[in-house]
Amino acid sequence: MTFAATVLTLYPEMFPGPLGVSLAGRAREEGKWTLDTVQIRDFAIDRHRTVDDTPAGGGAGMVLRVDVLSAAIDHALASHPEAPVIAMTPRGKPLTQERVRALAEGPGVTILCGRFEGFDERIFAGRAVEEVSIGDIVLSGGEPAALMLLDACIRLLPGVMGAPSSGSEESFENGLLEYPHYTRPVEWEGRTIPEVLRSGDHAKIAAWRKHQAEIDTRSRRPDLWERHVDARAQPASGAQRKSKDQGQ
Amino acid sequence: MTFAATVLTLYPEMFPGPLGVSLAGRAREEGKWTLDTVQIRDFAIDRHRTVDDTPAGGGAGMVLRVDVLSAAIDHALASHPEAPVIAMTPRGKPLTQERVRALAEGPGVTILCGRFEGFDERIFAGRAVEEVSIGDIVLSGGEPAALMLLDACIRLLPGVMGAPSSGSEESFENGLLEYPHYTRPVEWEGRTIPEVLRSGDHAKIAAWRKHQAEIDTRSRRPDLWERHVDARAQPASGAQRKSKDQGQ
Repeated sequence: MTFAATVLTLYPEMFPGPLGVSLAGRAREEGKWTLDTVQIRDFAIDRHRTVDDTPAGGGAGMVLRVDVLSAAIDHALASHPEAPVIAMTPRGKPLTQERVRALAEGPGVTILCGRFEGFDERIFAGRAVEEVSIGDIVLSGGEPAALMLLDACIRLLPGVMGAPSSGSEESFENGLLEYPHYTRPVEWEGRTIPEVLRSGDHAKIAAWRKHQAEIDTRSRRPDLWERHVDARAQPASGAQRKSKDQGQ
Repeated sequence: MTFAATVLTLYPEMFPGPLGVSLAGRAREEGKWTLDTVQIRDFAIDRHRTVDDTPAGGGAGMVLRVDVLSAAIDHALASHPEAPVIAMTPRGKPLTQERVRALAEGPGVTILCGRFEGFDERIFAGRAVEEVSIGDIVLSGGEPAALMLLDACIRLLPGVMGAPSSGSEESFENGLLEYPHYTRPVEWEGRTIPEVLRSGDHAKIAAWRKHQAEIDTRSRRPDLWERHVDARAQPASGAQRKSKDQGQ
């Protein structure tokens, strides 16, 4: 099945952008995913093709009109009724690798990119649109976030990454940061690759990597560590999460 | 002062990508920021221009060589010695709007983009490189994250956003999500703009927006809300944070 990406934007020329080369570019040439862009302005209803207006109640910036947004979304839904519609907004739920994996296993995704101050809030009541945030930062528009979300999905599509095992030991896949990596040269500026990694003892190497992943998660991301410990303390909910992870 | 962005990457053709149009594109044409890309492969030391090797201790994927990375970083530092060097990696510290603002107030940023499994860990011991994560997801490389980080910085550069007040009421700027927006039409599919926003009573509007921002932060982002409450409960540490914000 081909993963169908649709992007609703005022700047279709930003796509495929970085997704046109390397891993994502090759995958697109091979038909593993498709990209449609929809120009939101095409759904303006006045002769000036207006897409935005001043915020009700006053304030800086412009707000995207709900009637224009809904028409653009309805157009995308007509072509891809099964793809979830996601709006990139700092007010949304933070994106997780679990959500990315679920999206990659589905039929595709329709992404709504805002510009200006944001969306008229009524769009989220009137259409099934999932609000997603890519981090606690503010962008000039949703487009760079959409590119990132698509990149994260595309690399997980079947046959896109070279080695299928690459995905399973990565950061966040088991609730931990990934362990640190080393490669040749063995010595660089007086710093050597940790000896255990050169021992050839696979059990010792696996134990060292697990330990490093735990130390680093604990010191760098106490929030992740806390969730990891909680999940281990509750085997029932841990098992649930695992089966959900695999089943989505 | 012009903000100098330097990107170390194996795919220079991904830049400026989406930053070549709209707000960021215009700002670049106006000389408000500059973009240099550095091809990491140019710093390979063998005749095959090898940049990566298999992970010490075994495992899938390839790891970027520390000797090649350090040579590329040293090259960028020679041109832009004052710009902080940031590596995009899921093992890094989550990017915040506070960090983005500090970067935008500085001379620029040098961004190191990984591909494959990641960086040889020794680069972080041997060079002053800040590890930054853009969220708990895994990308095919650091490039989409670099585009996002640059977009977030560029919009904050002096003179780039139309209205200078646009920045101050946004999500995360005061530790809260932004309040919801509305614009004309007043009625859409039976849904109307909240009456208070049409009242013309500026004090009531401001109070409503503050309340909405608080409700939404509390329900959507309990993690942000907790920090917000803690900051208000401890005015001393709040003042400290503020001065750090201004001084970075």
